[in-house]
Amino acid sequence: MTLLESKFPAEVYAQRLAQAKGLAADSALDAVVVGTGAEFAYLTGSWVSSHERLTALVIPADGDPFIVAPQTDVADLADAPVAELELAIVAWRDGQDPYATVAEGIGEGSGGAAVWAVTGELRADHLLRLQEHTSARFVLANTVLAALFSVKDPEEIAQLEAAARAIDRVHAGVPELLVPGATEAQVAEVLHQRILEEHDSVDFVIVGSGPNGANPHHSFSGRALELGDPVVVDLGGTLGAGYHSDCTRTYVVGGPEAASEEFVQAYEVLERAQKAARELAGPGRSAGTVDEAAREVLREAGYGEEFFHRTGHGIGLSVHEEPFIVGGNQLQLLENMAFSIEPGIYRAGHWGMRLEDIVVTTPEGIRSLNQVERGLR
Amino acid sequence: MTLLESKFPAEVYAQRLAQAKGLAADSALDAVVVGTGAEFAYLTGSWVSSHERLTALVIPADGDPFIVAPQTDVADLADAPVAELELAIVAWRDGQDPYATVAEGIGEGSGGAAVWAVTGELRADHLLRLQEHTSARFVLANTVLAALFSVKDPEEIAQLEAAARAIDRVHAGVPELLVPGATEAQVAEVLHQRILEEHDSVDFVIVGSGPNGANPHHSFSGRALELGDPVVVDLGGTLGAGYHSDCTRTYVVGGPEAASEEFVQAYEVLERAQKAARELAGPGRSAGTVDEAAREVLREAGYGEEFFHRTGHGIGLSVHEEPFIVGGNQLQLLENMAFSIEPGIYRAGHWGMRLEDIVVTTPEGIRSLNQVERGLR
Repeated sequence: MTLLESKFPAEVYAQRLAQAKGLAADSALDAVVVGTGAEFAYLTGSWVSSHERLTALVIPADGDPFIVAPQTDVADLADAPVAELELAIVAWRDGQDPYATVAEGIGEGSGGAAVWAVTGELRADHLLRLQEHTSARFVLANTVLAALFSVKDPEEIAQLEAAARAIDRVHAGVPELLVPGATEAQVAEVLHQRILEEHDSVDFVIVGSGPNGANPHHSFSGRALELGDPVVVDLGGTLGAGYHSDCTRTYVVGGPEAASEEFVQAYEVLERAQKAARELAGPGRSAGTVDEAAREVLREAGYGEEFFHRTGHGIGLSVHEEPFIVGGNQLQLLENMAFSIEPGIYRAGHWGMRLEDIVVTTPEGIRSLNQVERGLR
Repeated sequence: MTLLESKFPAEVYAQRLAQAKGLAADSALDAVVVGTGAEFAYLTGSWVSSHERLTALVIPADGDPFIVAPQTDVADLADAPVAELELAIVAWRDGQDPYATVAEGIGEGSGGAAVWAVTGELRADHLLRLQEHTSARFVLANTVLAALFSVKDPEEIAQLEAAARAIDRVHAGVPELLVPGATEAQVAEVLHQRILEEHDSVDFVIVGSGPNGANPHHSFSGRALELGDPVVVDLGGTLGAGYHSDCTRTYVVGGPEAASEEFVQAYEVLERAQKAARELAGPGRSAGTVDEAAREVLREAGYGEEFFHRTGHGIGLSVHEEPFIVGGNQLQLLENMAFSIEPGIYRAGHWGMRLEDIVVTTPEGIRSLNQVERGLR
C-alpha cells in the first residue's frame, strides 16, 4: 500500500475534459466516445467497469460532456470527482438502448460527413451497436488524444517515479532468491508478495529461467533453477491513481561468473543497445528512431533476428499505450512522455535476456525512473 | 485449487471449430474473427491474451481456420491443444500489419456483399483497423454462435456444477462472519480466502451491508456491521477449464429475527419472484418471459421500481453471456443452457436484497446448481 493520492482534485479532471474537447475540435471530430478503462479514468478519475453493459463518457463537439451508464453502476460513478465535475449521468436500465442515447446526445453534427472517435479498448459489441445508430465514420480516439494522454503532468510523473522506485526495491532483493533447486513458481510467489508490499496491486510476474527466458511472455513454471541459468525477471504493479511500474532485469543463478562466455558477451551487446536508445531518445526524435537505435546495435552484432519485439511502449494509467517505440512510428516525442526502453535477445531453446527501464523525456533527452543496477547480477 | 481438467481433449475443440464453421456457413458469413477471451478459449482451449497486439482465431468460409498472433505469444499458443489441433499460427512482428494478414487469409469472399462476424470482446482498435482492410459488413459473432456457446455439453455442466457446489460451501460459512463491529472489508478478506480455497481464482466479492446493499455493484467498504443490518453477499470464482460460480444470498446480522418486519416481508416477495422465474424457465420459453415472471411478482407487490436490473445472465467461460434474462430478449431457451436467476430489491439509502442461483435447463424445466439455503439467515 502507498500513501499516494488515488484521485487528483476535481479541477485536474475538469481541465483534462476541456483539453480533450479542444483537441477533438482541432481534429474536426463531431464526438469522442470514451469507453471504460485508462482513458475514462484519466478524464473522470473513475475506474468503473461495466463489461457488456455500456458505460461511456461522451464528449460532443456541440454541448457538454456527459456519461451514459447502466443504472446498476450509477452509485459507483456518483463518487467524487465525477460529482464535483457536474458531469451529467444518463442512466439506462437493462432492456433499454444506451446506443440511441449516445447518438441523440451527440446530435446530427456535420451530417453525412460526421466523424466520431472511440477509445481503443471499447468492445466490439458496443462499437458495432453504435455504428448501427449513425452514418458517422469512426476513428481511434487514442490517436487524436495521444498528445493529451502521452504527455504527463508533474503529478503523473511523481506517481510513475514512485512506482519505479517501488519496483527497483523489489528487484534489489531478487538475487538472493535465485538459488539452485528453487522453482520459478516459488520465486514468483515471493516476488508477488513483495510487489504487493510496495504497490496497491500486482500486474504481472515473469520469472523465465534457462530456455523459458526465450519466451518474452512466459510467466513462470515449475522448472527448478540450475547453477548458471540465466533468469529474465520482469515485474510490474499498480499504485496511487492507477500508475504502473514495469522493469526487467536479467540475472544468473550463482552470479555472472556462473554464466557462459557466450551469454556474458551477448549481455554486453544488450546493454550497449539499451544505452544507445536511452541516449538517442528525447523531444524531437520520432518513436521509430529510438527503436532503430537499439535494433541497429543488436543487428550489427548478429542478434537482429533474436530481437523480435518493439523496443518499448508508453506507460501511465495503461501498462501499454502511445508512444509505442516501434519501427515506422513517426510520432514525435515531446517533453514529459513516459515509456519503456526494453530490448532483448531470445535464443530459442537456450536462454533469453531483456533490460528494461521506464524513462521520461526531459528538455535535453530522457531520465530513467528506474535506477536499480543494470548489469548482470 | 481443484482437480478438474483445465483443458478438454483436443477432439472437443476440433468438433467445436467444425460446428462454428458450420454455423457461420448457415448464416452466410464469409468469416468469423474470434478475439481473445472466452470464445477463443472455448474454441481453442487457450486463454492467451495480447491486449493491443492482435491475436485472433480466423474461421474463413473457404479454407481452414488459422490463428494470427504476435511473435511474442507464439510460444504460449504452441501448447496443447492448439498444437494437436494442427491450427496454423501466422506469427507477426511489431511493426508488421496483422490486419492485412487476416484480410488476405479470408480472401474476397462474396465481394462487396461480404459479411464478417467478430466476437463482442474484440477491442475497437482491432475492429477499426480490420474495417480499414475490407468493405465487408460486420456483425456480432456472439449472436451467430450463441447456440454453440450457450448450450453446454456434459463436461461443461459438470464444471459449472462443481463451481456452484464450491460457492455453496463458502456461503454456508457466511453467517458466523457477520457479527456486529466487523467491517465489510474484514468479512470480504475472509471470503476472498475461502473462495480461493474452493476455486482456482477469485472473480469478485460483494459484501453490501445496510444502505450499501442498495448498490447492486457495491464491492465492500470500511463500514462496520450493526445488529439487524441486512447484508447482500454475492460471490464468484473460477475453476477447472475457466468456468465460473456466481451466487448471492442475503443475510441479517444477528439472524432474521433481528431484521425489520418491512424487510422480512419484502424478502418473502423476493423469494416468490425468484421461484416464479425458476418455475417458468425451461426449453421453449424465451429469455424475456423468464425476466417477466420474476418482475411481475415484484411489480404487483409494489417493488417494481426498486428492481432495476435484468433477472439474469448466461454463464460459462464468461461470467456474463447469452442468454441474457432481460425484458424483450426473444432468444428461445434450449436444453442445457446455464444462466443466473437473480431478482433483487434495492431501497436507496436503506437496504438491498438479492437472491441468485445458477440454473441449467433440463427437458422439463430447470434444475438449480446452487443448493445452499435460500431463506434469510
